[in-house]
Amino acid sequence: MNDPITITTFEPKKKQGLIVIITGNGKGKTTSAMGMALRGCGHGLKTTIVQFMKGDLYSGEWDGVKRLAPLVKLYHTGKGFCGIEGNPYPHAEHRKNAQDALQLIAGILHADDCDTLILDEINNALQLKLVDLDQVKEIISSRPEHMHVILTGRDAHPELIDLADTVSEVREIKHAYRKEIEPQPGIDF
Amino acid sequence: MNDPITITTFEPKKKQGLIVIITGNGKGKTTSAMGMALRGCGHGLKTTIVQFMKGDLYSGEWDGVKRLAPLVKLYHTGKGFCGIEGNPYPHAEHRKNAQDALQLIAGILHADDCDTLILDEINNALQLKLVDLDQVKEIISSRPEHMHVILTGRDAHPELIDLADTVSEVREIKHAYRKEIEPQPGIDF
Repeated sequence: MNDPITITTFEPKKKQGLIVIITGNGKGKTTSAMGMALRGCGHGLKTTIVQFMKGDLYSGEWDGVKRLAPLVKLYHTGKGFCGIEGNPYPHAEHRKNAQDALQLIAGILHADDCDTLILDEINNALQLKLVDLDQVKEIISSRPEHMHVILTGRDAHPELIDLADTVSEVREIKHAYRKEIEPQPGIDF
Repeated sequence: MNDPITITTFEPKKKQGLIVIITGNGKGKTTSAMGMALRGCGHGLKTTIVQFMKGDLYSGEWDGVKRLAPLVKLYHTGKGFCGIEGNPYPHAEHRKNAQDALQLIAGILHADDCDTLILDEINNALQLKLVDLDQVKEIISSRPEHMHVILTGRDAHPELIDLADTVSEVREIKHAYRKEIEPQPGIDF
């Protein structure tokens, strides 16, 4: 619009893998992680997303990220929200799934196969004892130096917050569901 | 992984255009809006993004969203952050740009041309008097009933928060730049 302007591209002197945590009780944690996958594409960066917890209810990002292949890969590993009413699987089965996801992640780290690794809802998985604190810390400490790791979900563990470079807390100021508006596709899932 | 599970898709009885505000001083507002554009793609929904303020510094989402065309369109309309050191344009020119962006938005509303309209950094544009409160309220009240409108940026106006269905405040708990780590591509821009 109007006159053309000069667009500059910032180049950091040092590239550095960051630990980013997006936590809190508000809407926009997984969503924000998806935005980082999209943004990375513009820089030609590879992102791997491992979703804990969310395996049984369709969410639009599953097909959305296919448009970003092969730069972005998404694995949904869970059997839905553990402990939520209506979810039929026992804790042991949720934990087995999450532990399998950790094996998958170990392979990704070993292969040094992405620039950004998104561990979606891993904070909840930790809170629910599907994974252990030491296991998450091991991911962070053993990752290739250039690799960003994004951890999402409520109730981020204080020790992980200490380790992180950037932490945002998404607070719910209000939410449509409190007005009994049902979740809407594209916005809520 | 493991046994296959049944994936269900939620279908709201009533589809309803929501007003969503993502505000606060932390990282993850624009990013979250980009994630909603990506998520919408999975449902075949059309998203139009109008970015205020961010015209002069490259951000990865500009090329990222090209992968989502034609479902997602992005217009960056500004000449960079108004009032930020080093930005050479006077307030009047920033305001003219923002007012042109409102004309573009009026056309989008009139054509009923998307399911989700993202007004990125419009809260800042309002705060800086590049647009007026009545103009933003007019967008919200005149939109087609089915259309979601997402407003991002710091310091969301209280009257807009009152009008919104869902509001998240992204709070900075910590940020890498405070450790003098430079912005990293794919994460910060």
